[in-house]
Amino acid sequence: MVSIKDIEEAAERLSSISIRTPLLQNFELDEAAGGKVLIKPECLQITGSFKIRGAYNRLRQMSPEQASNGVVAWSSGNHAQGVAAAGAMLGIGTTIVMPDDAPRAKLANTRQLGGEVVLYDRYTGDREAIAKKIAAERDAALVPSYDHEHIIAGQGTIGLELADDALELGLTPDQVLIPCGGGGLSSGTAVALKSRLPNVEIYAVEPADFDDTARSFAIGRRVRIAESARSICDALQTPMPGELTFAINRKLLNAVLTVSDDEVRAAIRFAFKNLKLVVEPGGAVALAAILSGKLATAGKTTAIVLSGGNIDLDLFAEIQAEPN
Amino acid sequence: MVSIKDIEEAAERLSSISIRTPLLQNFELDEAAGGKVLIKPECLQITGSFKIRGAYNRLRQMSPEQASNGVVAWSSGNHAQGVAAAGAMLGIGTTIVMPDDAPRAKLANTRQLGGEVVLYDRYTGDREAIAKKIAAERDAALVPSYDHEHIIAGQGTIGLELADDALELGLTPDQVLIPCGGGGLSSGTAVALKSRLPNVEIYAVEPADFDDTARSFAIGRRVRIAESARSICDALQTPMPGELTFAINRKLLNAVLTVSDDEVRAAIRFAFKNLKLVVEPGGAVALAAILSGKLATAGKTTAIVLSGGNIDLDLFAEIQAEPN
Repeated sequence: MVSIKDIEEAAERLSSISIRTPLLQNFELDEAAGGKVLIKPECLQITGSFKIRGAYNRLRQMSPEQASNGVVAWSSGNHAQGVAAAGAMLGIGTTIVMPDDAPRAKLANTRQLGGEVVLYDRYTGDREAIAKKIAAERDAALVPSYDHEHIIAGQGTIGLELADDALELGLTPDQVLIPCGGGGLSSGTAVALKSRLPNVEIYAVEPADFDDTARSFAIGRRVRIAESARSICDALQTPMPGELTFAINRKLLNAVLTVSDDEVRAAIRFAFKNLKLVVEPGGAVALAAILSGKLATAGKTTAIVLSGGNIDLDLFAEIQAEPN
Repeated sequence: MVSIKDIEEAAERLSSISIRTPLLQNFELDEAAGGKVLIKPECLQITGSFKIRGAYNRLRQMSPEQASNGVVAWSSGNHAQGVAAAGAMLGIGTTIVMPDDAPRAKLANTRQLGGEVVLYDRYTGDREAIAKKIAAERDAALVPSYDHEHIIAGQGTIGLELADDALELGLTPDQVLIPCGGGGLSSGTAVALKSRLPNVEIYAVEPADFDDTARSFAIGRRVRIAESARSICDALQTPMPGELTFAINRKLLNAVLTVSDDEVRAAIRFAFKNLKLVVEPGGAVALAAILSGKLATAGKTTAIVLSGGNIDLDLFAEIQAEPN
């Protein structure tokens, strides 16, 4: 299991390389929620998403022998950029297996950060098999995108910052909403939050059409989503919760909420218009949950994580042009 | 003159209503500058720009008698929203004279905040005369958008926050770049910065085609820009520096830089792609100055103010779609 000490040590490692993202407030959002909302904008994090936290925490703890053979990962784009950036900082070669329909910005940034990108077809290829084959050939270590203690602990540093900054503002969150794909962000953040704020309620938020964690919660064990599942949230298209992450989430989360693609699109528009932030679909699910009333927020203090901002311009412009 | 004590008192007044905007950092921007860049994103401020700071500081100091007749202001949109929001908070009626070509978002937000909007033609009408006539009819006070000690002191709180947060990060700015229209933001911020960081160099940044402060600097007295002047920066189209603001700026600024509309557009694209922030043209001039190399930034610590983010979607989409 991941302890608060693991997360505090991760925060120590990250202190010189990641951004301590601020805790923002916005009047229009408070008005929409009928309460106070605290915003943790990880779209402002280096690489444009929270993923550098876990990736760096993992790579930093590799032995020199392990590191010398480079690392291999698979990712739709945000973990890819995190791994590539961490590798560049630590002098570790990185190879990332990415779907060929990943946002162009994510592909370009990963390459620009020095990552070697291997493309596959998201709906017919097996990214895990491809990555494992490359890793075996090179005797290189795999860097999972969520189901690893070092990854979970790294993402958990968001919970530490959120809790500490909220307490400094004198605003104790009643509830926190966290985007959920494989569950690394939600599980790590939940461990940190529960340590600092024992009474806080924690909710993961998933795309309605990619609700593997919600379904797994419902029946009490991990289930895999149908292969036909689709979502606008490219960053959250994980077919099944992780083993470690699900064990933690099951223990610490109050529930898993889901939001539709249309609710996500409306949230991206709200963020442009009122927050002045660029948020990608997967990064906007917690905001979407609040705006669409998935949870009672009136009179409460609610914190949300905006987990990333790596969205292609054409999709962004298309979404903004839609009527509200 | 405006003293550091005036600004500290303004900060006290503002502490419960405005956002203490964070000081952000971004790797891509550091790379472009060849040094460290600290970003003060006032686009995240309530009303989407810094203007609430000065407006609230002015309205808060009115006598009950003055306040009971309401206030009148003129503005292309950001001061309008600041005055309307401050009025709503303090229960003071607000009337704002705005150009009929102001960004639609600025017009809509001002009305939504409860401001009564009176439209005029930016290029043929006399906003000052219209506002003064309304004020005289109602025995209402005028709220200038820059040339008033309370306004300057309010905007100056940005300098306090910037200096204090930079020092806490252990990053003493060598130079600070501040957008400049009438000069309220630059003069107030300069007073605060020089008090905290006596050796800092301060630069105002103007649109190249609306360079009244640069021209005034060059000849040592305030000059009015030609009526034919145009700029994409709707927020910075002030025809002449203020009397108070120019006196302060002349004493404290190192120089006035100018940027072209194209450089501003490139900066707005950079902010979308790398900073994940929505910045309006007038808010992007300091970023544009860095990206277009108007000032040596290599090996230095440079702070910039992004003064607002109220941009209409169609212009934003048009700018983003342009090639870099």
